Amino acid sequence: MSVSERQKAAIGRRRNEVETPALILDLDAARANIATMAERIAELPAGLRPHAKLHKSPQIAQMQIDAGAIGIATATIREAIAMANAGIDDILIANEVVGPAKVSALAEVARSTRITVAVDSRANLDALSAAATAASSTIGVLVEVDVGMGRCGVRSKEEALEVARHARGLPGIEWRGAMGYEGHCMLEPDREVRVQKQGKAVSDLLAVVDHLAADGIECEIISAGGTGTYDLTGAHPRVTELQAGSYVFMDAFHGSLIPGFPPALTVLATVVSRHGPRVILDAGRKAVGADLMMPVAVGHEAVTAFLDEEHAGLDVGEDCELAVGDTVELMPGYGPTAVNLHPVYHVVENGIVTAVWPVLGRHGSDAPIGKERARD
Amino acid sequence: MSVSERQKAAIGRRRNEVETPALILDLDAARANIATMAERIAELPAGLRPHAKLHKSPQIAQMQIDAGAIGIATATIREAIAMANAGIDDILIANEVVGPAKVSALAEVARSTRITVAVDSRANLDALSAAATAASSTIGVLVEVDVGMGRCGVRSKEEALEVARHARGLPGIEWRGAMGYEGHCMLEPDREVRVQKQGKAVSDLLAVVDHLAADGIECEIISAGGTGTYDLTGAHPRVTELQAGSYVFMDAFHGSLIPGFPPALTVLATVVSRHGPRVILDAGRKAVGADLMMPVAVGHEAVTAFLDEEHAGLDVGEDCELAVGDTVELMPGYGPTAVNLHPVYHVVENGIVTAVWPVLGRHGSDAPIGKERARD
Repeated sequence: MSVSERQKAAIGRRRNEVETPALILDLDAARANIATMAERIAELPAGLRPHAKLHKSPQIAQMQIDAGAIGIATATIREAIAMANAGIDDILIANEVVGPAKVSALAEVARSTRITVAVDSRANLDALSAAATAASSTIGVLVEVDVGMGRCGVRSKEEALEVARHARGLPGIEWRGAMGYEGHCMLEPDREVRVQKQGKAVSDLLAVVDHLAADGIECEIISAGGTGTYDLTGAHPRVTELQAGSYVFMDAFHGSLIPGFPPALTVLATVVSRHGPRVILDAGRKAVGADLMMPVAVGHEAVTAFLDEEHAGLDVGEDCELAVGDTVELMPGYGPTAVNLHPVYHVVENGIVTAVWPVLGRHGSDAPIGKERARD
Repeated sequence: MSVSERQKAAIGRRRNEVETPALILDLDAARANIATMAERIAELPAGLRPHAKLHKSPQIAQMQIDAGAIGIATATIREAIAMANAGIDDILIANEVVGPAKVSALAEVARSTRITVAVDSRANLDALSAAATAASSTIGVLVEVDVGMGRCGVRSKEEALEVARHARGLPGIEWRGAMGYEGHCMLEPDREVRVQKQGKAVSDLLAVVDHLAADGIECEIISAGGTGTYDLTGAHPRVTELQAGSYVFMDAFHGSLIPGFPPALTVLATVVSRHGPRVILDAGRKAVGADLMMPVAVGHEAVTAFLDEEHAGLDVGEDCELAVGDTVELMPGYGPTAVNLHPVYHVVENGIVTAVWPVLGRHGSDAPIGKERARD
């Protein structure tokens, strides 16, 4: 779903004149963050494959590629299709893709785009192989290793070997390596504990890689890491790709962990009520979300007291002059789920809305994909 | 934004054959819940004005009206416009509407629809009056009283009187009464404590009504309550309107509080990974949300271990036969924020998708409303 001419009516307005609540992308700050990460990664052995689950924006993905990223990661087949349609030509779906319609859509995209996908079961590999064969395409695969989250991923070296061997015998499938996402480390606020947990996660992943190598199976790609561990995992001499995403926008949560990246994403809100030190905004959990951390008011000494469905409650000093009708920008606690609440970005340069960009690949946002089985 | 022909491709499929994650509305269950609430309310003095912030669906709103509801409540001007455009002719925006574009859009809707809106400041009243005068319409107002949430609403009887007097002197404004939403009581799991808190909230609201009456200002409308207090607030002889909404879908949270309403809303998900007793689904916080409570798998003995961005982790017994590719339906912890993550409902009758209905009025989902000030 793209941006309608009517939605573009916001172009030309000042950043505080957009209808609230609205997603504001400060392009100047995002450009700076992309450049900063590109510089830092250039000194590390791993390549950067930014995770587009954060932004769901081909425009931002292209900026990342232009700054040297080796490709893009996505969490879903819908995000991958949106990126491929916009011309991004090397995509890792860092997740399992399951179900006949999705698998067939994946095989279709792989006809014209280099696609790699995570796998952790033989059944899923068989489905991918059949679809790739039918579409005359090749799907690259990484075995996903559970490095501590208890989510997807094989649970042992032996299981990894079984999946890898199976993958290498299947038509339409190209074996590419291993992936282990240390999501549980990102949430660790204490840097020392984070370093320790991250070290364990990466060494668990590499133990699997070594086990495969002992069987003659080499991993061309070893993929791991996120913004919260970019300087640790990205510095490991054997990790080839880093899946950092949040650094572009730097939400309140990541901003509290990682220095050097200014916030580029806010939700513009209007003061709808004020009584004493309590200010109420028209942006709540349906507009900004409370994931990982409460949102933070930018430029005000304020405590976010609560976040209801359609309201944020800020406690400001009695001297704060915010009044009914004024606007406030909230930095989300966690970027990806905040972006997911909006169909468009209001792209701001030098304080003025210069473009309206779509947020693509949200669930249900377009027709069903693929050739799903209709009722008999 | 309406439903495209392509999105309707799901019609005719079985409820477990829709692309996942997908919002599933069991229309049979929703009809039963609407009928049950209509019967229960018929015995109570208050009228039912269902809150459409839950469903954002004119189709469901019309079913509620057809079952005897006196009108609809909404949380935002966008929801109100969507309802009015679909022919709902009596709408309470149970919230303050602030900002020139929104206020002017409100005055415009009020030309053809009976509109009532909550107010808690003189400044907002002045803006509403100016817009109504310019549009040659009449906007009804209720003074919102803070009955314990610390959100919007006047903080004292004296402040209420000041707002009421001001409202009654303004052109284009029709004084209609008072509103106090006891949202803090809904979250109280202990029935006895809930009864106590609700009693205090309603008596705080009525104390304001009495204070206004002593000044000769009568309240034609006294609006309060939600699903969590419907049988208490709705039974009060002086409350005229009840703003219950969640009863139609009965999420996991409300289901734990209020007996007699089967769940009508689920998110269909696919098993993408299984290792031992841990099953991973392709529906996470971007598809079902973790507000108030974790989602609950329907029809399985399962504990929802975590809800990540795109994954739910279920712990099922070793004997549970769920395998990669199977589908599971998750009942959301809280309905309104789960619905808000989806553009459409897959409407199921007797196990088959018979319609695809839009979720309307989500933030940013259409062009900016009203005549917002463009940059000079």
